[in-house]
Amino acid sequence: MTVSYNLDVSSVSFFNFFKLLFRWRGSVWKSIWSELVLWLLGYYLVMVTYRVALTTEQKAGVRKYIDHLDQNLDKCVPLTFMLAFFVTIIVDRWKNMFANIGFIENTAIAIATLVKGTEGDVLLAKRTIIRYLVLTQVLVFRDISLKVRRRFPNHDAIIKAGFLQDHESIILGGDNGRTNYWMPVNWSSAILQKLFEDGNIPAAPLFNSVWQEVKTFRSNMATLCNYDWVPIPIAYPQVVFFAVRVYFFTCLFTRQHLDMEDTKTIDYYFPILTVFQFTFFMGWMKVAEALLNPLGEDDDDFECNYLIDRNIATGMAIVNSKYSDVPEMLADKFND
Amino acid sequence: MTVSYNLDVSSVSFFNFFKLLFRWRGSVWKSIWSELVLWLLGYYLVMVTYRVALTTEQKAGVRKYIDHLDQNLDKCVPLTFMLAFFVTIIVDRWKNMFANIGFIENTAIAIATLVKGTEGDVLLAKRTIIRYLVLTQVLVFRDISLKVRRRFPNHDAIIKAGFLQDHESIILGGDNGRTNYWMPVNWSSAILQKLFEDGNIPAAPLFNSVWQEVKTFRSNMATLCNYDWVPIPIAYPQVVFFAVRVYFFTCLFTRQHLDMEDTKTIDYYFPILTVFQFTFFMGWMKVAEALLNPLGEDDDDFECNYLIDRNIATGMAIVNSKYSDVPEMLADKFND
Amino acid sequence: MTVSYNLDVSSVSFFNFFKLLFRWRGSVWKSIWSELVLWLLGYYLVMVTYRVALTTEQKAGVRKYIDHLDQNLDKCVPLTFMLAFFVTIIVDRWKNMFANIGFIENTAIAIATLVKGTEGDVLLAKRTIIRYLVLTQVLVFRDISLKVRRRFPNHDAIIKAGFLQDHESIILGGDNGRTNYWMPVNWSSAILQKLFEDGNIPAAPLFNSVWQEVKTFRSNMATLCNYDWVPIPIAYPQVVFFAVRVYFFTCLFTRQHLDMEDTKTIDYYFPILTVFQFTFFMGWMKVAEALLNPLGEDDDDFECNYLIDRNIATGMAIVNSKYSDVPEMLADKFND
Amino acid sequence: MTVSYNLDVSSVSFFNFFKLLFRWRGSVWKSIWSELVLWLLGYYLVMVTYRVALTTEQKAGVRKYIDHLDQNLDKCVPLTFMLAFFVTIIVDRWKNMFANIGFIENTAIAIATLVKGTEGDVLLAKRTIIRYLVLTQVLVFRDISLKVRRRFPNHDAIIKAGFLQDHESIILGGDNGRTNYWMPVNWSSAILQKLFEDGNIPAAPLFNSVWQEVKTFRSNMATLCNYDWVPIPIAYPQVVFFAVRVYFFTCLFTRQHLDMEDTKTIDYYFPILTVFQFTFFMGWMKVAEALLNPLGEDDDDFECNYLIDRNIATGMAIVNSKYSDVPEMLADKFND
Amino acid sequence: MTVSYNLDVSSVSFFNFFKLLFRWRGSVWKSIWSELVLWLLGYYLVMVTYRVALTTEQKAGVRKYIDHLDQNLDKCVPLTFMLAFFVTIIVDRWKNMFANIGFIENTAIAIATLVKGTEGDVLLAKRTIIRYLVLTQVLVFRDISLKVRRRFPNHDAIIKAGFLQDHESIILGGDNGRTNYWMPVNWSSAILQKLFEDGNIPAAPLFNSVWQEVKTFRSNMATLCNYDWVPIPIAYPQVVFFAVRVYFFTCLFTRQHLDMEDTKTIDYYFPILTVFQFTFFMGWMKVAEALLNPLGEDDDDFECNYLIDRNIATGMAIVNSKYSDVPEMLADKFND
Repeated sequence: MTVSYNLDVSSVSFFNFFKLLFRWRGSVWKSIWSELVLWLLGYYLVMVTYRVALTTEQKAGVRKYIDHLDQNLDKCVPLTFMLAFFVTIIVDRWKNMFANIGFIENTAIAIATLVKGTEGDVLLAKRTIIRYLVLTQVLVFRDISLKVRRRFPNHDAIIKAGFLQDHESIILGGDNGRTNYWMPVNWSSAILQKLFEDGNIPAAPLFNSVWQEVKTFRSNMATLCNYDWVPIPIAYPQVVFFAVRVYFFTCLFTRQHLDMEDTKTIDYYFPILTVFQFTFFMGWMKVAEALLNPLGEDDDDFECNYLIDRNIATGMAIVNSKYSDVPEMLADKFND
Repeated sequence: MTVSYNLDVSSVSFFNFFKLLFRWRGSVWKSIWSELVLWLLGYYLVMVTYRVALTTEQKAGVRKYIDHLDQNLDKCVPLTFMLAFFVTIIVDRWKNMFANIGFIENTAIAIATLVKGTEGDVLLAKRTIIRYLVLTQVLVFRDISLKVRRRFPNHDAIIKAGFLQDHESIILGGDNGRTNYWMPVNWSSAILQKLFEDGNIPAAPLFNSVWQEVKTFRSNMATLCNYDWVPIPIAYPQVVFFAVRVYFFTCLFTRQHLDMEDTKTIDYYFPILTVFQFTFFMGWMKVAEALLNPLGEDDDDFECNYLIDRNIATGMAIVNSKYSDVPEMLADKFND
Repeated sequence: MTVSYNLDVSSVSFFNFFKLLFRWRGSVWKSIWSELVLWLLGYYLVMVTYRVALTTEQKAGVRKYIDHLDQNLDKCVPLTFMLAFFVTIIVDRWKNMFANIGFIENTAIAIATLVKGTEGDVLLAKRTIIRYLVLTQVLVFRDISLKVRRRFPNHDAIIKAGFLQDHESIILGGDNGRTNYWMPVNWSSAILQKLFEDGNIPAAPLFNSVWQEVKTFRSNMATLCNYDWVPIPIAYPQVVFFAVRVYFFTCLFTRQHLDMEDTKTIDYYFPILTVFQFTFFMGWMKVAEALLNPLGEDDDDFECNYLIDRNIATGMAIVNSKYSDVPEMLADKFND
Repeated sequence: MTVSYNLDVSSVSFFNFFKLLFRWRGSVWKSIWSELVLWLLGYYLVMVTYRVALTTEQKAGVRKYIDHLDQNLDKCVPLTFMLAFFVTIIVDRWKNMFANIGFIENTAIAIATLVKGTEGDVLLAKRTIIRYLVLTQVLVFRDISLKVRRRFPNHDAIIKAGFLQDHESIILGGDNGRTNYWMPVNWSSAILQKLFEDGNIPAAPLFNSVWQEVKTFRSNMATLCNYDWVPIPIAYPQVVFFAVRVYFFTCLFTRQHLDMEDTKTIDYYFPILTVFQFTFFMGWMKVAEALLNPLGEDDDDFECNYLIDRNIATGMAIVNSKYSDVPEMLADKFND
Repeated sequence: MTVSYNLDVSSVSFFNFFKLLFRWRGSVWKSIWSELVLWLLGYYLVMVTYRVALTTEQKAGVRKYIDHLDQNLDKCVPLTFMLAFFVTIIVDRWKNMFANIGFIENTAIAIATLVKGTEGDVLLAKRTIIRYLVLTQVLVFRDISLKVRRRFPNHDAIIKAGFLQDHESIILGGDNGRTNYWMPVNWSSAILQKLFEDGNIPAAPLFNSVWQEVKTFRSNMATLCNYDWVPIPIAYPQVVFFAVRVYFFTCLFTRQHLDMEDTKTIDYYFPILTVFQFTFFMGWMKVAEALLNPLGEDDDDFECNYLIDRNIATGMAIVNSKYSDVPEMLADKFND
């Protein structure tokens, strides 16, 4: 489920900031705490080993090596650049995916408005078109979202939920039929064609409009599939995510207080700044990880199951509405 | 209310710059002054504590720790990168939200132009469509803007303002009916369909055009809702805003003049550069905070209430206009 | 007036570069010279004061403070980042404004092509539509561009220029009538509707097309208004422009040659690198300032008055053209 | 073949990260391992030469030179900036190319829905249009993708695959006829025109819609050709790729442990940080190289041959479908 | 002519990289070699002057000044930032210009498909429309591209090439008539209107479609003109290009080996790293310079003359084609 926080930031103030900061669901804290604990464990393990297990001579040798790492780490691992640009690219992709997530309203209103008749067969046809479109969404989402797959592991589950009917499942080839992916859209188009031929869509331009809306919904679904088919080349996230881990693994050693004799620097037991740095960079990377597959199972991922239910409910309600449902037109109070 | 300053920057000059700088409403000064005062209080508290309350030995210990912080702070908190990229993403989002804020003119002119008849029932129908569209805007804005919610806390307030009528409120389910969000658009479409059937819209392509405009207005509203539904993942602003605060909290200590014996550096009592730095980074962050929810209550947020009033007034005026209102066509003075 | 320099850069060469560099109109030199002179005056004032008016002891005190500033300035004022990202956002905005500046050709050709008849009332109607569209542009530009406001301070000036007629001015409410901003577009639409009803536009799809073009022109104007209504939040340019000034004000002191005894560094009297730095950063900022309000009065701002004249001339010429003006079709020389 | 990894990142967790990291196909490891081995060979060659073959005096001379390189390398080779911005531009281009890769569904559904008749000549016409469109894709892909060229080295191969027929190949001029590139689209359009004239497309707006879809498919192909015709200016990748190689070539020397007497730094035999740096920068560059020509032969490149097969299969299946194939409409289970 | 290198990068490998690197046409080497030679001459001139002509005392004085420059240069000239962001903006502009360069195919296919008749007057009309469109392109390109201007210095040259005819040149006002820029498009529209009235375009929606294509072609041309009319404000390239030159001019001095006594640093005679740096930054800048005016005369600029010839040939071939040219439809080999 996405995490909404707009009310917390409706105005800029110090206290709103704190409200924002102390949210847990979807928060940076939730996403990094486990790795931070792991990192701290590693840190103290290194600390104890160094201070207790090593002789003074060994310490000197280790220190020389760690100093060498420390001096070159930031030059060799360009974290900020990699993260900043990678996140920008990922956010762009995430935005486009959301723009193609598929809302039924426009299509449903087109069907309700441009197709005449609100009874009997025509009504059934309208409802069936809506059902086929949402069915397409279900079929597509099953292949790209684990959550939806879990809800609809097979055709039976879809039939039980009402999106599919037995005889349709057979035509689709049942659970093993994968190639006939877009068939329901084709059926919708055929039904539209029939409605046009029977005169229920009174003119060609209107037929055109309805069909364009159906096409748009289908194109959205196709775009989602394509984003799934051709992700950002795997080497890019690999490089970025690996760089972050290498950096902080090295920090396990370089951020230790090593020089026991030096009286000018203080001996500290909690690497507070490194913990902050871990929070910022790891949190930044987690944003990228979460956005990389927005149809996944993170707190912030799109709520595909909710969307499916909302689409079928809204779509059906819209095509069901009749002209007689429109409230009587009464004069309004606005002056001219 | 948004803050306009275009005339101040109509030409590039040194004085125009000052005019721009000394604006208060929506300014960076207004947004940061309270936190800056707070920060300075903290700064002087730390200063007095350090200089008065600590013994020389304690001072030495504290200094060592603060020196350690000072040397690593900038490496560990990549403020510039985070702010720069975050603001870029937020500005893009803000721009898109404004592009979908919903202006009625195009729809109103389409209705006025493409639907024949300016009297009686047809006029009422036109006015009602406009009213329903603005009503949709009111209903949507109530859910995403605190200011509009405060103006219209319940259906009664909307009815009193004239956007809704009693019998319509009942159909919408009153204050508790939330699911029938898009019903007014559906009613508008139905009215359009009726007008087409009755011959008031003379041809299918024109019906199409009017309907497309209504759809566009609705899509704008839906886009706003979706932006509200799926914000930038909360972890991103958390990381950025937290980083800024951590940075300046640390600066409370690291920007002190600590070495009382050192004769080479000067003892200063006002951290002028840090105050500037605070202004720049905090101001930059405030831009991001303000843009994060542009429908909120900051000086620079979109004026939703004004927009609603403007939309209903302009929309009604446009659909009211008759051909007889068009001025007589006289020859113009331009040569060929 | 915009400054064209494309021919200077038609090929990459060392000499073309110099041609580009030594342009004056709209150049970086023109935009910064006055502030650079001011800055140099300040610089020499500080130099003289320091060298002549201060005792050696005072010098030492001042030097310590200036050294402190010098060491921290670049850390505290992130000029490059702020300017780079701000300019990118501003350039994007500037590009969009130009894309909506409003060219009449498409609309005019649509009217000329899709409306039958090139004589008498039909011609007058065509000319009037063009005039109304350009009138809208005049009315909008008056409110967002100082130059156009100066050319048309009141309705009389617009009437004298021929864009408006007396009886139309009265309907618009004269100089004080502001709310009826979009009335001329409404009139144009009404005239189009009349032309369609009278059969001068032979089919609904063509009516549709013409109307869409009129709508596009209006939408362009509305977009310009909206950009004027909702600028980049004022805090953003304030932060950026203030940062640049603070930086160079501090440089007045930190870029002095202070240590008179030091024999290792040279005593210099002209801060050549700082002058270059001033040129680059100030020039970069000036680009941002100039683009912030592209309808203003800078050398590089859009030539709104020219555009208005060009639109009315081109528009009238296009709608005036008759089929008989088309040259006789003769066989061409191209082989198949 | 593109490499899909979405399921690996469906939620953010430490283990998913490792799953992602240890993929081989298309991975950063696969793309850099050979150059890394080469680099390490060079590194040890330099090491051995320096330590074994040089006298102490020679060592001193070499060291001075290498020190000079080391101090200036990062200033002189702005790797991060160049790579970050170059990759951003390339990713944008790659995205656009994929958006124009050409999916047949929309066109096929348009033909199936808007053209009446599913038998005999009409069916043949529909199938032929699909075939011509995919043929266009084959012809275009042959010129811009080595893989497709290898599959279809000449017209005979295309004929054998069924996309082309003998008499069509003759009209196209056989293997040497290149100018008549877009002829098949023209044939498709002519067939559509015939279908319209014969009444199989019942109305002009529908004819229009089908034709627009055919045009869109053709425009996609034209866009691909244009991207091939006008690539990013060659100087840009040259500069970036050369910079990366120069940097790491210099590192062969500067990352050696040179000062044998120095007891403060450790003598190391494996340049671990440099290897990491090599991985990050080289991997980043490989992302750019792979995306630069997404129709090439890398693991992550678009699967053009698969797309062609998929398009012909899907397209044929869609236009073959008859209304009688649509499942019987039965009442659904959703409440109103 | 644009330089194509896609085949060289069809897969990522070390050898492909070298193939790419050693291209000459349009390469970074070609664009920088002359300035690099110039720079090296300057470098050795400075070297010789310093080493031979100056006394030890003078050397000391000069060295102090150069050291001062060296320490502050990178701070004062933010080359990477300026180049990176400038190139990004320029690439975006370049992309848009190419997208509007004007390909005739879509328009030609629209005319061929939607206008009935392939003989006599109708064919002549079709050919004339194509000719007028390409003529518009010629007229526009003449004003924004030096190469095209050189090919068509006056109307006679255009007439000789066949794009224009004598009686048309007279109407256009001959070589001095500039205002009637868009007349040929207007003529095309008028011819289309005539074709529609004569029934050669069978329905209004089709007329609409053809006209939209003509309009799109014209809009492309208008966009090119506007890009020419309103370039990036001149101050921006001035700042960037000047900064690069100032930087490397200063490097003439700061990259010398100055301290003859210092035994710790080596005396070198070829500034290898600076030459690399020159290559990278100068090459990067040359990319920007070349893209700034993509209609110019660089190796990588768009081939306007070729495009014009291609457009007229393709356009004529497309409108010439008759239905009888379409190959006989035979059953294909694909299964269902």
